[in-house]
Amino acid sequence: MRIRNIKNANEIVDNCDVVIKEPYMKKGNWQEEFGNANDIYLEIGMGKGDFIIDMAIKHPEYNFVGIEKYTSVMARAIKKIPKDLRNVRLINVDALDIGDIFNKEIMGIYLNFSDPWPKKRQSRRRLTSEVFLKLYDEVFKYDGLIIQKTDNTGLFESSIISLNNYGYIIEDISLDLWQTDKVYSETEYEHKFRLQGVKINYLKARKKNI
Amino acid sequence: MRIRNIKNANEIVDNCDVVIKEPYMKKGNWQEEFGNANDIYLEIGMGKGDFIIDMAIKHPEYNFVGIEKYTSVMARAIKKIPKDLRNVRLINVDALDIGDIFNKEIMGIYLNFSDPWPKKRQSRRRLTSEVFLKLYDEVFKYDGLIIQKTDNTGLFESSIISLNNYGYIIEDISLDLWQTDKVYSETEYEHKFRLQGVKINYLKARKKNI
Repeated sequence: MRIRNIKNANEIVDNCDVVIKEPYMKKGNWQEEFGNANDIYLEIGMGKGDFIIDMAIKHPEYNFVGIEKYTSVMARAIKKIPKDLRNVRLINVDALDIGDIFNKEIMGIYLNFSDPWPKKRQSRRRLTSEVFLKLYDEVFKYDGLIIQKTDNTGLFESSIISLNNYGYIIEDISLDLWQTDKVYSETEYEHKFRLQGVKINYLKARKKNI
Repeated sequence: MRIRNIKNANEIVDNCDVVIKEPYMKKGNWQEEFGNANDIYLEIGMGKGDFIIDMAIKHPEYNFVGIEKYTSVMARAIKKIPKDLRNVRLINVDALDIGDIFNKEIMGIYLNFSDPWPKKRQSRRRLTSEVFLKLYDEVFKYDGLIIQKTDNTGLFESSIISLNNYGYIIEDISLDLWQTDKVYSETEYEHKFRLQGVKINYLKARKKNI
């Protein structure tokens, strides 16, 4: 993603109630933070927030936590959040930290248009590499459940192999999401891609009883 | 595939030594038929034979059996087989019969551009449906090993889900085979598709210790 520094990004993030300032203190207590027993879903790399905000609006019966490591990007997401939206929280951390933030509290993880890290020596940085799948084991409540969207063929191919080798089963897949009836909340990227006719790959993978 | 009746198709097939007339009698004795201990690979729906003939020429260290239910189509394949090619045999049967033809003798099955049977009520006819995966269990020697190529997105998506649900793991995958270094023997279809720029999906899936 192109990261444009915006003025007062730190200030915007610091002053936003939706952003959890000490997420490590919430470990094991996220249900309490939301004040209900609804399932919690995570989006890693939420970017400018279009997806998670739309999901939260459409699904008041779920809670959503968005992770984004770039403060400038998160500041742009914050501006879009409706004031009365109570089922979304944001965390300004690196994805590698999630094991210190959640303890078996997450129903599913959304990975939307993640960095493909195409070079082989960088493959461990992919959010579906074994390094990350191991981390996710620590945060899932019941099953491991990963829902991925990407335009990047190489990332998608490597994700399928990595997920399968780690015990995940592909429950649903599409090589052209816009040709299906499975279309749901769009990211900023996805919206542009759709207008350009770029095909979106989609999968839903589950690892039972983590 | 467009099936064009050719004159004397039955006669061509009947008079060809490479075609096994009583395949059910060979059950458990295929190694003997080939006269060696080399691994045996199967292509189900070999069509006009371009793929299996090219594989047999390139891999004299393996044996190949091609199955094709349409006599007219098989007759066209027969015409292409070089006279001195000793590691290929053809069978003119329906794929549903393979459990009566092989007994734990097959190393891998190639499924190239199989009929996609796109309608849901026909999904059991797909060569990667559970119906067929169960049949394959009876013919595989060690692991289940399926290598699939198709231009049909729907068939490819349903194959991934079906294979995964049946215990197969995707070991290798490409959504655009011609952009990789994994290109190998082409079918008649594939050759046309490549010239037209149609993307070929490819996967290699394994189920250990059947």
